[in-house]
Amino acid sequence: MTEAQGMTVAELARLTGARVEGDAERRITAIAALDEAGETELSFCTGGKYRGLLETTGAGAVLVSDKDCDACPEHCVALVVDNPYYAFAAAAMALHPLPDIARGIHTSAEVAEDAELDADVAIGANAVVAAGARIGAGSQIGACTFIGPGVQIGGNCRIANNVSIGAGTRIADGVIVHPGALIGADGFGFAPGPEGWRKVPQIGGVRIEEGAEIGAGCTIDRGALKDTVIGRNVKLDDQVHVAHNVEIGEGTALAAGVMIAGSSRVGRRCMVGGVSGIADHVEIADDVILLGMTAVTGDIREAGVYGSPIPAQPVRQWRRNTVRITQLDDLFQRVKALEQNQDQSD
Amino acid sequence: MTEAQGMTVAELARLTGARVEGDAERRITAIAALDEAGETELSFCTGGKYRGLLETTGAGAVLVSDKDCDACPEHCVALVVDNPYYAFAAAAMALHPLPDIARGIHTSAEVAEDAELDADVAIGANAVVAAGARIGAGSQIGACTFIGPGVQIGGNCRIANNVSIGAGTRIADGVIVHPGALIGADGFGFAPGPEGWRKVPQIGGVRIEEGAEIGAGCTIDRGALKDTVIGRNVKLDDQVHVAHNVEIGEGTALAAGVMIAGSSRVGRRCMVGGVSGIADHVEIADDVILLGMTAVTGDIREAGVYGSPIPAQPVRQWRRNTVRITQLDDLFQRVKALEQNQDQSD
Amino acid sequence: MTEAQGMTVAELARLTGARVEGDAERRITAIAALDEAGETELSFCTGGKYRGLLETTGAGAVLVSDKDCDACPEHCVALVVDNPYYAFAAAAMALHPLPDIARGIHTSAEVAEDAELDADVAIGANAVVAAGARIGAGSQIGACTFIGPGVQIGGNCRIANNVSIGAGTRIADGVIVHPGALIGADGFGFAPGPEGWRKVPQIGGVRIEEGAEIGAGCTIDRGALKDTVIGRNVKLDDQVHVAHNVEIGEGTALAAGVMIAGSSRVGRRCMVGGVSGIADHVEIADDVILLGMTAVTGDIREAGVYGSPIPAQPVRQWRRNTVRITQLDDLFQRVKALEQNQDQSD
Repeated sequence: MTEAQGMTVAELARLTGARVEGDAERRITAIAALDEAGETELSFCTGGKYRGLLETTGAGAVLVSDKDCDACPEHCVALVVDNPYYAFAAAAMALHPLPDIARGIHTSAEVAEDAELDADVAIGANAVVAAGARIGAGSQIGACTFIGPGVQIGGNCRIANNVSIGAGTRIADGVIVHPGALIGADGFGFAPGPEGWRKVPQIGGVRIEEGAEIGAGCTIDRGALKDTVIGRNVKLDDQVHVAHNVEIGEGTALAAGVMIAGSSRVGRRCMVGGVSGIADHVEIADDVILLGMTAVTGDIREAGVYGSPIPAQPVRQWRRNTVRITQLDDLFQRVKALEQNQDQSD
Repeated sequence: MTEAQGMTVAELARLTGARVEGDAERRITAIAALDEAGETELSFCTGGKYRGLLETTGAGAVLVSDKDCDACPEHCVALVVDNPYYAFAAAAMALHPLPDIARGIHTSAEVAEDAELDADVAIGANAVVAAGARIGAGSQIGACTFIGPGVQIGGNCRIANNVSIGAGTRIADGVIVHPGALIGADGFGFAPGPEGWRKVPQIGGVRIEEGAEIGAGCTIDRGALKDTVIGRNVKLDDQVHVAHNVEIGEGTALAAGVMIAGSSRVGRRCMVGGVSGIADHVEIADDVILLGMTAVTGDIREAGVYGSPIPAQPVRQWRRNTVRITQLDDLFQRVKALEQNQDQSD
Repeated sequence: MTEAQGMTVAELARLTGARVEGDAERRITAIAALDEAGETELSFCTGGKYRGLLETTGAGAVLVSDKDCDACPEHCVALVVDNPYYAFAAAAMALHPLPDIARGIHTSAEVAEDAELDADVAIGANAVVAAGARIGAGSQIGACTFIGPGVQIGGNCRIANNVSIGAGTRIADGVIVHPGALIGADGFGFAPGPEGWRKVPQIGGVRIEEGAEIGAGCTIDRGALKDTVIGRNVKLDDQVHVAHNVEIGEGTALAAGVMIAGSSRVGRRCMVGGVSGIADHVEIADDVILLGMTAVTGDIREAGVYGSPIPAQPVRQWRRNTVRITQLDDLFQRVKALEQNQDQSD
């Protein structure tokens, strides 16, 4: 398949397990939003407030669930599935395979003589692969990226441009690292004493397991003694910080700007909203969801949704209320006094 | 003009529309702070607590407003304007033009054969320009910077060193991008389903309009289907994150560390204080000002100032008061009970 | 010493000022955690909840304080010191000296003809050193790093890979800069006026004093007119942002994601918890400790511990309580009314 040729609706149905309502031979070449799609394009509808867009879409085909099928206009083929967005992800990836990060080994790339590159490894322009590094079959390394000494990268990884991967890092198969991610730098380890801060060598590594994806500008520090671990299929958005010795469980997703301090453990299948902070040495259970801008200062032992952001208020209201927060304990004492007084007078 | 020669006060007055009080022929070669400036240097005074520094300045010339003119010492020429800092910006830029990021096309730069470079494009050492990229006249690209396949950059842009600009990005004329900015990486798009997270290809782009400025270490993700849009003259400080499909209106300024989640729209002429977070799918009106460290969890429909940061308190007070925050709803019930009880006894 | 040979316990004792209880001739080749260390490895114990791990450790030697010495198993040599972690830092650095960032000047590095490199300077592959830069003896510069025009770097500095150091930066001896740090970019200086934002040239520099350490992905902006100053032995964790004209006093440590707005001054020996934000033009005294996720909106004039994070709550509780925060001032009025009413009825 080339992008121009695309796929038939029947092929997309086979891929996604969809039931077809309409012309199964229609050819689809690309994906598009409901309100922009044309007759050779596939869209999706998750219902609710998007039903209206479905009714007026110009899309050639749409992935929908059974309950929204009736809103699909006549000219548009319905691909009926249980989870339209999940099916759309598969169809979209088939129609728009990820583009190559590099092809072949660029003449300007500096690859150490003893670095081991398996079959079909591609290295971009001005990239640097240091001594003893090993890169698995089919992996691609972007331009201006640095792969440090002894780093191990599995097969079919996509390491984008301007990335830094330091010594002590082991990356499993199928991992995606976006531009500017900084993996394997020293953790923040200093011992305080009479002469001030003394640097503690960071000799642990970073282990990134299969299928994980690391966002642009993330920082994942190497462990002090043990490894920092990013579990299988963990998804990190941009500018996430993972301190030394943190462990993140399989399938957990962290939105942009989440910062996790040293030695904390985040469970499996957690979802952490953007700009949240997790203190050091904290344990978070499996299946915990944190709202954005939440501060986690202690363990969270049970699955569930947690939060702490204070929503924006008009500034005058904010000014009055935040002063009150600093007087809150006083207020509780005053109310207690009122209650006691009332009890006595009853 | 060379930096050594400088400009006369008369020339600066013409540039800024100032009224001169003193020697219009004095030569000024540089800018400096009020308390450090010497006789060939220009400073500015915005009044208030800075009047004292004006009285004792050694500056050769000062941009001041009419009301502070009397505080200007005799040896110092006054350039009287309505908005001294705004005038200072113009004078400072004339005295200190931005230095070149690169000159010519460095022999070590890797420029794809079919990349189109207009007249006077400069490309720094070890920079990489991928296939199909187009760079407009007079634009400069810094060292170790990656310009991805098909990227379009307008004229007179300043793209600093160690920058990453990914496929799908279109940058208009006169845009400044500071070091380490990461533009056009994949948005955080994953569909949850029985097999975990499925990656959704991100095929939208990033559009950066005329005169915008992008700070060091920012991340601006490409759209999922449509574009992420940074409007005209938008100013982003360092480490700002703009997720996929966000749109930021003309003239808005975001301070360091602001993070905007997917598909949110920020109006025109907004000012967002540092380390604020804006949730996904939120609309913020024009002319909204957000204090630093504010959490925006829903739409803000009216212009005005909003905030939510809780200011630092001594730790004992903080500990007492934050426990109280988690008991606040209870307290409201208790006060209500007291009020009802009192009403009955009245 | 090579890593394989290691050091004897006696040598480690001399280095750390420890009293030896056990075989001083035992040879130690590496450091390890208490629960993973073997007979040729050194660990440390700071007591408390770690005493249990000490009792069962397989380590060949352990740094402990006098009070925990009795928990040390017989096969393990005790190195008794006042501050085990501080002593461990010294021993660990002797056993694991920091690895070279580069060796010699790589043929692919682009070093300007008039750059001055002192003896034993090493420059990594595809690094760029611009015109007029000066690098002191024994300093190492990593791959793909950009050293801007006129930058001054002292002796024995370790500037890692993919770093950007802009014009106007002066770095003293023994400074460590981790990958991807962005130093010396323009501060966020814009003057508002009738035509929108006007850029104010940033002509101040960045001064980083002896022994400072700058984390991965940090941004330290150059001053507007004066310098931004990072004091002696200041330690910045990853993704810290230091705006223009900020000054950070000697020995202060900032955890990951701390952001300091323009012209603020942080005292000496402060410790700032991660993801805290400090507003502009704020003064923080010496010896101030800030909890993580704290918002500093005004001066802090006295040493001590301060904070403002609101800890995560289960979402239902959070929803009820945060609504209440926005009604807090009202509640204070209601309680006041109750009190007055009660006073009258007494």
